[in-house]
Amino acid sequence: MSEHLEGKQCILSALRARQRRFELVLVSWSAHRSKTEVVIQLANQLGVPVKIVSPDEMDKMSKGKTHAGLLAITSAKPLTNQVELLQMVRDPDKPPFFLLLEGIEDEQNLGFIIRTAGAMGVDAVLIKKHIWNFDQLAVSRASAGVYEWMPLVKIERESELLPDLKKSGLKVLGALPKVKRTMYDMDFKLPIIVALGGEKRGLSGALRQSCDRFFTIPMNISPHNAAYGVPSLSLSHSGAIVMAEVMRQRRG
Amino acid sequence: MSEHLEGKQCILSALRARQRRFELVLVSWSAHRSKTEVVIQLANQLGVPVKIVSPDEMDKMSKGKTHAGLLAITSAKPLTNQVELLQMVRDPDKPPFFLLLEGIEDEQNLGFIIRTAGAMGVDAVLIKKHIWNFDQLAVSRASAGVYEWMPLVKIERESELLPDLKKSGLKVLGALPKVKRTMYDMDFKLPIIVALGGEKRGLSGALRQSCDRFFTIPMNISPHNAAYGVPSLSLSHSGAIVMAEVMRQRRG
Repeated sequence: MSEHLEGKQCILSALRARQRRFELVLVSWSAHRSKTEVVIQLANQLGVPVKIVSPDEMDKMSKGKTHAGLLAITSAKPLTNQVELLQMVRDPDKPPFFLLLEGIEDEQNLGFIIRTAGAMGVDAVLIKKHIWNFDQLAVSRASAGVYEWMPLVKIERESELLPDLKKSGLKVLGALPKVKRTMYDMDFKLPIIVALGGEKRGLSGALRQSCDRFFTIPMNISPHNAAYGVPSLSLSHSGAIVMAEVMRQRRG
Repeated sequence: MSEHLEGKQCILSALRARQRRFELVLVSWSAHRSKTEVVIQLANQLGVPVKIVSPDEMDKMSKGKTHAGLLAITSAKPLTNQVELLQMVRDPDKPPFFLLLEGIEDEQNLGFIIRTAGAMGVDAVLIKKHIWNFDQLAVSRASAGVYEWMPLVKIERESELLPDLKKSGLKVLGALPKVKRTMYDMDFKLPIIVALGGEKRGLSGALRQSCDRFFTIPMNISPHNAAYGVPSLSLSHSGAIVMAEVMRQRRG
């Protein structure tokens, strides 16, 4: 089934990543050349047909309002399979850093996390989900295009892939509120899978069973505000903080 | 001018924070009691009138679709003035940690940053903006209610408040891409104002003039993905990473 991609950032990322098969790139003749030129050039290089259309035609075909005159018809982004993932694990030069997400239903949150993962050295994102029903365009946009190149692995059950990864030496470290150890007590230099659960329910019992250790993100509240607030972090922001701590420990 | 607040989290936070004057709390008779009870109790305690309305009436009055049967009519959240802010600076027990935001137009991003600030020990958020035209309901919701209690200070020009704060010993530390020093080279234990600029333009020239130092957030990209991606972070996620580093340095 073919999919739409809209906007310069997503289309350019997808062309560069070469994971999707492109049927056609549509460019509105009213779009600004500074937006479209680099996309058209790369499409030409890769032999992807480019069609110039009227702004009306573009508006009719597009789902969002932020296509800025660029739309592509492509295959779905292929998921990374487990064999490919296990190959990454064998890279002797870099201890793997995988992110495992559970209970994420919101496309924007998923996109945000994938974007940060792209900037923080995550090798692949594992997503536990039964039905892969994300609006891929929404995820790609929120990820600023990182979705197009970040290896994504779908997991249906913990028993599927985690035992193999653990046998290869990876530790599964689960984020939980209110456990004693903080992320600063973890050794994130090891080959790791960091597991994050959705904001409402956290990590499921089944996934907790697979975790080697748990950690929490310490919080802090200003004494000036302590009377009012119960601090909490959103999923994508706590994810950013944990990924940055992994990066901090792994640099130099 | 009166404003709407919608949803349990925002209304409860606002009642607890006692910054807004409440005219009325409206409760839909179809709303689940587990959602409404604590709000009604607190409104009663504070002498705020509560009115039970029909679901239709509630839908007609509400702006969003996520009120979940709770709506409040209140005064605007008052901004914190500069005298109050300077009093915080004099607290001998805690070196101040202020966040200064420039060029933020998006309510959701602003709300996200304020929420994280609430969990990371920020004492007050200073917002440089000429016209205070935020949709406060959208900011409050995205902040998970932290907007209701976090002291917010509006700044129109750098010359207004920053010289006084700097005279009181605060250092202004500006986040910029591609500077040599990273956030790990900063001493965030000092009394500080961390300045973040919008994603597109960054910090303005005028604000850079006021900065004592600049730092960057180091990034990292997986060698498996290095061919495709140009890493970048969204404003609210880079904000989260910097605030967490301040927290890390300040904890015992």
